[in-house]
Amino acid sequence: MSEASEFAAGATAYFQDLQRRICAAFESFEPQARFSARSWSKPAGHRLQGGGESRLMRGAVFEKVGVNVSHVWGVLSPEARAQLTGADASEGRFTACGISLVAHMVNPYVPAVHMNLRYLCTSRAWFGGGTDLTPTFPFAEDTADFHAALRAACEAYRPGAYAEFKAWCDRYFYLPHRQEPRGVGGIFFDDVSGGDRDRDFAFVRSVGETLLQVYPRIVARRKDSPYDEAAREQLFVKRGRYVEFNLVYDRGTRFGFSTDADPEAYLMSLPPVVKW
Amino acid sequence: MSEASEFAAGATAYFQDLQRRICAAFESFEPQARFSARSWSKPAGHRLQGGGESRLMRGAVFEKVGVNVSHVWGVLSPEARAQLTGADASEGRFTACGISLVAHMVNPYVPAVHMNLRYLCTSRAWFGGGTDLTPTFPFAEDTADFHAALRAACEAYRPGAYAEFKAWCDRYFYLPHRQEPRGVGGIFFDDVSGGDRDRDFAFVRSVGETLLQVYPRIVARRKDSPYDEAAREQLFVKRGRYVEFNLVYDRGTRFGFSTDADPEAYLMSLPPVVKW
Repeated sequence: MSEASEFAAGATAYFQDLQRRICAAFESFEPQARFSARSWSKPAGHRLQGGGESRLMRGAVFEKVGVNVSHVWGVLSPEARAQLTGADASEGRFTACGISLVAHMVNPYVPAVHMNLRYLCTSRAWFGGGTDLTPTFPFAEDTADFHAALRAACEAYRPGAYAEFKAWCDRYFYLPHRQEPRGVGGIFFDDVSGGDRDRDFAFVRSVGETLLQVYPRIVARRKDSPYDEAAREQLFVKRGRYVEFNLVYDRGTRFGFSTDADPEAYLMSLPPVVKW
Repeated sequence: MSEASEFAAGATAYFQDLQRRICAAFESFEPQARFSARSWSKPAGHRLQGGGESRLMRGAVFEKVGVNVSHVWGVLSPEARAQLTGADASEGRFTACGISLVAHMVNPYVPAVHMNLRYLCTSRAWFGGGTDLTPTFPFAEDTADFHAALRAACEAYRPGAYAEFKAWCDRYFYLPHRQEPRGVGGIFFDDVSGGDRDRDFAFVRSVGETLLQVYPRIVARRKDSPYDEAAREQLFVKRGRYVEFNLVYDRGTRFGFSTDADPEAYLMSLPPVVKW
């Protein structure tokens, strides 16, 4: 096992543990619903090797939430290669592992949340990811809480990182055709490779731990807010923007389309009910 | 007024008339709902000139139907230019007019329908368009009826045109990531410029007239079919595939994203209620 493969296996073990803890935290809000898990792996001889576990819950608080972990490696198709840094120099060989999470909530006053953390290795190795909040009805308290927690994680990693990753998030999660941001932001980073991989990975883990602390707090604060059908309708329309962003602009989703990955995995971010 | 502009103005007049007749035919199914019209035009001095009229109805039979006509000209952005044949040679100058129609139906046994007819002029001039059916529950009778009508229109234009345009439609309206066709097909054509513009335009008009004859017949046949909530749920999920196709693959929609056109116009195809 190469050193890079060994590192990816270790990172995957962390992502699996994080997945387990996040799912347990989310289930604790649900009177009945529980995550269902689906493991998948690529058959031997396939261009892509590896697999993952997708966990999905449709509940009374979490209308649809997916938490997926995957660890794949192999040789990318020429089309997919062009989209991944360093994959030309590696002749398409790559290793990738990560966790991704999207939660769409029943109560229109609870913001949707997204998180993605990943490790990638082609001819280079780096981390990417981020987390951001998409409320239909933004509350300054939730936005401030979320951003303060992320600021702490970023500044512990490197002074100035929060401002940089927050601005990157604002640029990235933007719908140019509607001239609107997707939500109230958070952080987004890519190509994080500061020269000290353990330190970089500690930062990535701290983002995961931050999400696990701060988001359940926001859910607890808003989940019992009274709402009417008009507010749900606004939620459904807001989710349409989410779909537009993910299918038109999101790099992870569009990368999924250029591979033969399972569409149910990279499309798990799509909301349960949407209106246009 | 140049000869090309004059032709485009005449074609637009036809598309407007077709829009009026289609809207009247669709309204005749509705006890109460009527189309609402929204005219738009680009302000003077804008890179794009011209305008259009979008008509939208949300009814008891037609859950959401949009019929849009537009006629625009000007200079394309470099990004949009690369996507349009002959626009490099014309230094981005273009004229375009057309009609587009998408209907999503309340009754899950009535297929959704799409039609688009357009005239484009850059350094070249040509027609494009097509029409296709997307049932959640396909009925062989409807599929056969629709295809027979299109076959007649195509074969009157040029022997062999139906097979060619049908195959093009099957290739185009295909979701590679799901390995599924979008629907049961129809016809699709682009770059139609046979040397006789009047004859080409007569064909394009015959496609519009065919849709106007055949689709109301299918609606009449299926609109009162009894259905349950499970069938509606299947409709909502099928519509998700429609959204995936339109936002990820459809050239017209993706062209819209690369211009500063009104998103409500090129996104009117998005279904009213969708589930994933």
